[in-house]
Amino acid sequence: MRTFPTIQDILDARARLKPHIRHTPLLRADKIEKSVGCELYLKPEILQVTGAFKIRGALNKALSLSRDDIANGIIATSSGNHAQGLAYAAKMLGVKAILVLPTTSPKIKIENTKALGAEVVLFDGDNAARWKHVYEIAAENDYVPIHAFEDPVVMAGQGTIGCEILDDLADVDTVIVPMGGGGLISGIATAIKETKPSVRVIGAEPALTPKYHQSRINKERTSLPLLNTIADGLRLSVPAKNPFPIIEKYVDEIILVEDQRIIEGMRVLAKDAKLIAEPAAAITIGALLAGSVGLKPNEKVCAVLSGGNWDLSDLAAIYADG
Amino acid sequence: MRTFPTIQDILDARARLKPHIRHTPLLRADKIEKSVGCELYLKPEILQVTGAFKIRGALNKALSLSRDDIANGIIATSSGNHAQGLAYAAKMLGVKAILVLPTTSPKIKIENTKALGAEVVLFDGDNAARWKHVYEIAAENDYVPIHAFEDPVVMAGQGTIGCEILDDLADVDTVIVPMGGGGLISGIATAIKETKPSVRVIGAEPALTPKYHQSRINKERTSLPLLNTIADGLRLSVPAKNPFPIIEKYVDEIILVEDQRIIEGMRVLAKDAKLIAEPAAAITIGALLAGSVGLKPNEKVCAVLSGGNWDLSDLAAIYADG
Repeated sequence: MRTFPTIQDILDARARLKPHIRHTPLLRADKIEKSVGCELYLKPEILQVTGAFKIRGALNKALSLSRDDIANGIIATSSGNHAQGLAYAAKMLGVKAILVLPTTSPKIKIENTKALGAEVVLFDGDNAARWKHVYEIAAENDYVPIHAFEDPVVMAGQGTIGCEILDDLADVDTVIVPMGGGGLISGIATAIKETKPSVRVIGAEPALTPKYHQSRINKERTSLPLLNTIADGLRLSVPAKNPFPIIEKYVDEIILVEDQRIIEGMRVLAKDAKLIAEPAAAITIGALLAGSVGLKPNEKVCAVLSGGNWDLSDLAAIYADG
Repeated sequence: MRTFPTIQDILDARARLKPHIRHTPLLRADKIEKSVGCELYLKPEILQVTGAFKIRGALNKALSLSRDDIANGIIATSSGNHAQGLAYAAKMLGVKAILVLPTTSPKIKIENTKALGAEVVLFDGDNAARWKHVYEIAAENDYVPIHAFEDPVVMAGQGTIGCEILDDLADVDTVIVPMGGGGLISGIATAIKETKPSVRVIGAEPALTPKYHQSRINKERTSLPLLNTIADGLRLSVPAKNPFPIIEKYVDEIILVEDQRIIEGMRVLAKDAKLIAEPAAAITIGALLAGSVGLKPNEKVCAVLSGGNWDLSDLAAIYADG
């Protein structure tokens, strides 16, 4: 079985998803440009159905399976955005969704997943332990596990974002993408590099979990201690198996971003773009605010904002200090 | 001189503005629908250039004047969003902008207006007193005053929102619009009723300043005590002269909204639509949350969200209680 999506897979995903998801707008962020020194465009998946990009991959996968295959239900674990995506897909298809969420997930992600009619299992454990639990439940009940970032069909769904960016800003120079499991950037980088290889693709990874950054240096997937970055959606101790070679092939640069810059990015996006960004999304703006991205004059940069699911009370604390 | 915009004025404005402003997306707000009992779409002028709709009217007016006319500069007073619109227009055209803002304006509106290169004059007084001051300064310096809601060319600019709504949701049943000076709803109602009269247009006005509501009952423009609603953009003690007959002709219903519902609307928009709404924008959602809008089953409702310029620290206080 192929472990990576082709450009054709991504184009197929685009056609499959078209009636169901939003082609999110590309927003020029002129007020932020002075602080970051480039022509800045935002790709706000914050405004996507379910408030995050994950619906693209989840729904692409669910729609590509036969109804018989998923008759008993679909299952996964996630910090909460893939969970909402799968719950939404399951509701649309009239099948059961079971989602294993870490006990530390933001309340809004747990509530939204339940509100979509999914069964939520809270489980105290890291990503590997949670997946082990998922596969056990799946085997017992004949549920179909849908992996958030190892599955090439899921990656193809996320890659549709890359097609939309190229459609809306044909002369984009650089695209910055958050790196968690690596499914989002694998899809987007494939879409972009297979269409217009001159566009630079940069990954933004929390400095507290520099798994892909360190693995690139080591030239192999390297496990690191899991430190507690604010970007819950990007917490992972080791690069994912299938995305790693895709990222090594297509991603030009991996930039580390301190949590303090992520928080600053959340404030800037609220004040100057009027968007509620969760930390995993604001990391791309944090990378620019930190001056970590080398830029030519007038470079056209697109920052992918992956989602906006964050508890209001936690947002309040962050905005109060702004 | 005509005191109202025609549909042709609005179509001309649309062509004139097209290269300069954003056709804001129409966003289905499925997560809010359960709380309000209709199929809900948001028209987020929050995502407009300058963070509010006012750029449409300000720029339409500035572009329709000859360069000689405005050689010395343009001037106005506003709670801050018309100010940013005019400052943006003046910067684009390379002329001076002088904006008289109330001392009580949110800091973000004052700062953004200054950041666009305009001269800001802070003035302690109500809308009438501030306009008197504007006309004095204008006469002394040969500046051109551009009224935020009395000017039919400004209203025509705001009306372009109505065209965009009909383009993006041809079968919309009801459009809800915030009412401050009345320029926004005059433009939108003209665009909609002159194109598709069956669409219902509803105005949402703060219960603390029910000027248009009371004047409709009294069948004449009625001055009321100016109470201090949180919706700074909608504070006015008496209906504006030119919008009043337009509103009486085209607006089906005027609904009063308590400040507490406006605040609730701000929270709901943050949590479920990921948008930073200022109070004047959230009033349309507040009206729906209060159950004040009579609705048929499956009615398609579009809520116009006028702007998102509100200080982060004040947002924090509102979100903290959510």
